[in-house]
Amino acid sequence: MASETVVTVVGNLTADPEVRFTPAGTAVAKFTIAATPRHVDRQTNEWRDGEPLFLRCNVWREAAEHVAETLARGTRVIAQGRLRQRTYETPEGERRTVVELEVDEIGPSLRFAVASVTKTTRQGPPAAAETPADDPWTAVPATVGTGTGGGEPPF
Amino acid sequence: MASETVVTVVGNLTADPEVRFTPAGTAVAKFTIAATPRHVDRQTNEWRDGEPLFLRCNVWREAAEHVAETLARGTRVIAQGRLRQRTYETPEGERRTVVELEVDEIGPSLRFAVASVTKTTRQGPPAAAETPADDPWTAVPATVGTGTGGGEPPF
Amino acid sequence: MASETVVTVVGNLTADPEVRFTPAGTAVAKFTIAATPRHVDRQTNEWRDGEPLFLRCNVWREAAEHVAETLARGTRVIAQGRLRQRTYETPEGERRTVVELEVDEIGPSLRFAVASVTKTTRQGPPAAAETPADDPWTAVPATVGTGTGGGEPPF
Amino acid sequence: MASETVVTVVGNLTADPEVRFTPAGTAVAKFTIAATPRHVDRQTNEWRDGEPLFLRCNVWREAAEHVAETLARGTRVIAQGRLRQRTYETPEGERRTVVELEVDEIGPSLRFAVASVTKTTRQGPPAAAETPADDPWTAVPATVGTGTGGGEPPF
Repeated sequence: MASETVVTVVGNLTADPEVRFTPAGTAVAKFTIAATPRHVDRQTNEWRDGEPLFLRCNVWREAAEHVAETLARGTRVIAQGRLRQRTYETPEGERRTVVELEVDEIGPSLRFAVASVTKTTRQGPPAAAETPADDPWTAVPATVGTGTGGGEPPF
Repeated sequence: MASETVVTVVGNLTADPEVRFTPAGTAVAKFTIAATPRHVDRQTNEWRDGEPLFLRCNVWREAAEHVAETLARGTRVIAQGRLRQRTYETPEGERRTVVELEVDEIGPSLRFAVASVTKTTRQGPPAAAETPADDPWTAVPATVGTGTGGGEPPF
Repeated sequence: MASETVVTVVGNLTADPEVRFTPAGTAVAKFTIAATPRHVDRQTNEWRDGEPLFLRCNVWREAAEHVAETLARGTRVIAQGRLRQRTYETPEGERRTVVELEVDEIGPSLRFAVASVTKTTRQGPPAAAETPADDPWTAVPATVGTGTGGGEPPF
Repeated sequence: MASETVVTVVGNLTADPEVRFTPAGTAVAKFTIAATPRHVDRQTNEWRDGEPLFLRCNVWREAAEHVAETLARGTRVIAQGRLRQRTYETPEGERRTVVELEVDEIGPSLRFAVASVTKTTRQGPPAAAETPADDPWTAVPATVGTGTGGGEPPF
């Protein structure tokens, strides 16, 4: 099978996006989407909120900067990406696993908002800009520490 | 099965959205998204455009007005909705079928753009505003003509 | 954007699959899935069927033969594929457009059925067998007629 | 928004499904799907496996029994469901979170297999059988222990 596990999520940012850069200078924006399903309670015939799903998201390169400039805590978004699983070790030597979304496309939802959209000039060759990030970290020298952790995933 | 055929589309608007109103006063925005897949040609190792998919879309109520205010011809969007099939008769008495997207969530893509987002005040009870439009046309008096067509679907 | 418009459909086959072969000998199975959404009527609190969506599907190569051997009229399936649009000309010179699903993965649904599954031996190199069919017809000599149609799409 | 985060996964079962019953007698089948993406390495022009995604799945009621009867370790499946997040406490008092798939529809993939399908007679009213499991555990008396855990989620 050639494809990945693609998912579309609709929800609200739990905090402002954080932008970081790999040692090679590639930008990545990180944030969490809270997706709260609603359904009709058949007993009461009323809408009820279900348990929220909190999905950690990464956006790379140009789009990372657009996300940081456009979205903020509370913004309702629609995002599509590929589910990724990442395993890391805690300082105590325990292995933990997180599921994250490598976002390919994201925008502010127009359900409860309007927006004024401005096209950016595309830098660099289109192919590079549009290639899904296979693993932007591979260019990172192994000696670069990825922080300290402590029960938290590397970032 | 309780669910519909849900699909997420990424592409560009082929024209400005058109807003219409049902006789009961419900707004609907109509537009077409052109989704052009790209893939790597394994012979040349270069990106190549595939055949575009043109998908007609409907957005209802508040969101219809937000769409009309925010999106324009050429805007790249990400949209999620339910595939619907509609059969109509041409003036010559031929039956034709179109597949359309009843959009539940849409936003301008941040891949090549930034946006300034403004929340609107939600009118009316949330449940009503957020209920997927089962069939907003059912409230329409039967005597209201749905236009004339001419080889084109009613709208 | 590198990806296509991917959709998952759940529904029942309207007829037995038909298998055909391209002049180059590639098998394709063709069939239609009827997907009927169900939702709770909030007035009556009862389940109601919505309008069915009829989606024409193509499955290629090995999987085509598996589909023909496994599925029949009425079988409930779950299928994932890419939406494709195809334009053809009627004998009267009119252009028509159909939306089809190029199926990447399909199986009989276990909601109301059980199945006895038998692995087949994979012929040929895995890469070839698993490559999504970009356009299996390109190998077809141009002189091979694609039939006559008559108001119907080529096939 | 009325909808949940729906995802379709294609992959192989890592082990035979396990069936359990709630105190109220509702069946649930539990298993894990390993989804391994493949993509063309643009340097070598060859297919390469990516990191697998392991997704824990629950299937409820009738379908649980069909799954247990049909699927086994290694079976390639296509499954659609809703992403759910579940937080639990370890015996050491740590809170952990897992993402799971509440499967609505699943079937053995016909990519590398054929199957012989047998319809089952549907027991009980269709509406009940087809209602997505909101929370089948709510009927469980609070005094029923959910086991002991030990670094593992309840099950």
